[in-house]
Amino acid sequence: MRDQIQASIITIGDELLIGQVIDTNSAFIAQKLNEIGVGVLQRIAVGDDAESITNALDTAIQKSQIVIITGGLGPTADDITKPLLNRYFGGKMIVDKPSLDHITYIFEQVHKRPMIERNRKQAEVPDVCEVLFNKTGTAPGMLFKKNDSLIFSLPGVPHEMQWLTNEKVIPIVKESFKLGFIAHRTLLTAGVGESFLAESIATFETNLPNNIKLAYLPSYGMVRLRLTGKSDESVSLNNQLDSSFEELKVLLIEHLVTDKDEPMEVVVGRLLKEQNHTVSTAESCTGGYIGHLLSKHAGSSTFFTGSIVSYDNRIKTEFLDVPTNILKTVGAVSKEAVEQMALAIRSKMNTDFGISVSGIMGPSGQTDEKPLGMVWIGVANREKVVSKVFYLRFNRQKNIEVTANQAINLLRLLIINKI
Amino acid sequence: MRDQIQASIITIGDELLIGQVIDTNSAFIAQKLNEIGVGVLQRIAVGDDAESITNALDTAIQKSQIVIITGGLGPTADDITKPLLNRYFGGKMIVDKPSLDHITYIFEQVHKRPMIERNRKQAEVPDVCEVLFNKTGTAPGMLFKKNDSLIFSLPGVPHEMQWLTNEKVIPIVKESFKLGFIAHRTLLTAGVGESFLAESIATFETNLPNNIKLAYLPSYGMVRLRLTGKSDESVSLNNQLDSSFEELKVLLIEHLVTDKDEPMEVVVGRLLKEQNHTVSTAESCTGGYIGHLLSKHAGSSTFFTGSIVSYDNRIKTEFLDVPTNILKTVGAVSKEAVEQMALAIRSKMNTDFGISVSGIMGPSGQTDEKPLGMVWIGVANREKVVSKVFYLRFNRQKNIEVTANQAINLLRLLIINKI
Repeated sequence: MRDQIQASIITIGDELLIGQVIDTNSAFIAQKLNEIGVGVLQRIAVGDDAESITNALDTAIQKSQIVIITGGLGPTADDITKPLLNRYFGGKMIVDKPSLDHITYIFEQVHKRPMIERNRKQAEVPDVCEVLFNKTGTAPGMLFKKNDSLIFSLPGVPHEMQWLTNEKVIPIVKESFKLGFIAHRTLLTAGVGESFLAESIATFETNLPNNIKLAYLPSYGMVRLRLTGKSDESVSLNNQLDSSFEELKVLLIEHLVTDKDEPMEVVVGRLLKEQNHTVSTAESCTGGYIGHLLSKHAGSSTFFTGSIVSYDNRIKTEFLDVPTNILKTVGAVSKEAVEQMALAIRSKMNTDFGISVSGIMGPSGQTDEKPLGMVWIGVANREKVVSKVFYLRFNRQKNIEVTANQAINLLRLLIINKI
Repeated sequence: MRDQIQASIITIGDELLIGQVIDTNSAFIAQKLNEIGVGVLQRIAVGDDAESITNALDTAIQKSQIVIITGGLGPTADDITKPLLNRYFGGKMIVDKPSLDHITYIFEQVHKRPMIERNRKQAEVPDVCEVLFNKTGTAPGMLFKKNDSLIFSLPGVPHEMQWLTNEKVIPIVKESFKLGFIAHRTLLTAGVGESFLAESIATFETNLPNNIKLAYLPSYGMVRLRLTGKSDESVSLNNQLDSSFEELKVLLIEHLVTDKDEPMEVVVGRLLKEQNHTVSTAESCTGGYIGHLLSKHAGSSTFFTGSIVSYDNRIKTEFLDVPTNILKTVGAVSKEAVEQMALAIRSKMNTDFGISVSGIMGPSGQTDEKPLGMVWIGVANREKVVSKVFYLRFNRQKNIEVTANQAINLLRLLIINKI
């Protein structure tokens, strides 16, 4: 098989090493490289420190034909990447006129703020690089070459990095290398553990062709399975993957949520759109998070109508007609309360389906009968209401996320007549 | 100064190299190590591949006294970390009785599912490691020693990794090394650009003591500034940092949101709690995300009452009394609509403050007069309603986040009488 072209990703910034920010840039770049058949060998995060950056560069250039660096190109004193790259590749700094014009335009026309020397300096680049004009911001991207490796330097601001990756890096990489093909197939299961799943497909896994690999990505009540294939030839690779994937789907049909790499709420959104149906939510402990998930993807206005977040019990009574009697006797975290909430929101917003949740997300609020992590979820359609209790054991943030996912899954089961 | 103890973090998993998941574990570990004065030299992510893992280990052990590995300890075939570490450190596999008992307990008592050989194997560990008993899951942590370095191997499941880090790794590291001190001070500004900010504190930055470093963390209309100090002595370091930090705060007083490392919604939550005030939200384009931000932190039930998410215009009229006349003439994305929404939600939920948003988050929905990213935000108290229009230029997801942050910031300005 053709040698795989390998890339290394270097992210720069002290904030990555003290845990103040989470690195989402590497994931984006890795995904884009994979789509065109470039494997990512490693991702390295280093601080704003010349020695660490130089070491990472040395290793990366030695091991990979493509190196992508993000971060450290800003206008402030902790941004040391550009002068360092200039020394590393033995250049001298010159002004890039198109970048300077663009920075001037941004300050004068967009921000309407005075442009200062510090901003003007952002237009300076080493004379040994090819400038990657950055339409989306003030820091230009740069391309260096050394020992047959391409070294890209991009700003760390996510939308700028994304634009430069799509518009400059990917086209240049495609032009520069004869690439092999990598392809993936991903499916999502719910309601079955990782070990049990592995057991039921053990023979399938053993018999996979050598160029296809299976990976398990468990996440709280759901497991994503991914087949990855590599080959020099795209059509045969896709046929091979399709055939293995079909086999896998048949084995897992009972637990299969989707055979695409997409989150649960997108699956449910598609089901609703197909049937021309709508949904509304009555949320307590999730505080609006289910509405957010349902509406965060483009096109959601065709099926998502709205929500009432009844964080305070008073709102449950006033807006969702939960009798104070229920709140006093069985309480807000109860079958009775969520069933009433699901029925009420569906009827009041006149939607085909209603979702409701009420639970104790932590870190406090438990009672003797109701432990931390206890949550009731209800779903209703025009004929019936179904509810289920869950006992979660994560932290507050994770409990909120899992509750929302389980609620959307329960709606899915109602839509496909499985409950 | 005492030599800084340095750590390397290695995260293992193909999913990290194809961009399918975002690495949050490294950030958590880095934060915990920093708190006890351990610097993180680098973070490396590699695939489920023996050669890459071995190379990363070689480099990490050579450069750092502490190495923390996460991932690859699961029960499935792609989890190769444990046998690899066994070979690397020259051990042989033995059953760890406490882990086996615990795994048996989890399957028999918690999951109530049959335990299979695959699960039993999770209790096997190399005889050359110290077992770190994992109360929170089925994969035990491990501690190896080589050339004065401590090498920890932890499962990749976030809540298990977190528990083992807190309960095992940190205490062992504190006991094993004479640690220096690292301390941080962080503040958040809003409404001023990074370059302009840098200019206004240029002299301050130049005059900082050698052991204190300043970093800029810009994020869409807000900039976080962080001072990091290192020293052998905790009291003098903290005094030194406090004094620099006070100076910085005075320079930035006009734009200062908070002098703590906390998000905007926590600042506003505290302001509301201090005044014994409450807030409710009327959300359109954010779909519940503002309610989620306000309620995601513990203790929010004292100030957050609830929301009406009026994604469909019909809900704006029926639940928030926005006259159809307004929707027909100036439209839902208008000063008139959000002001009515803010007034209505405040009054209907009987809260002290109301927040409302309506905008075009993309990727479609724009008109000639209303471009993508246009969003109106309103905030009301018992006396008045104030609204402001923003023009955002990100993708849908980012536009939703920025809208929510700007809305919460506008509420903050209303609470402190700045608008």
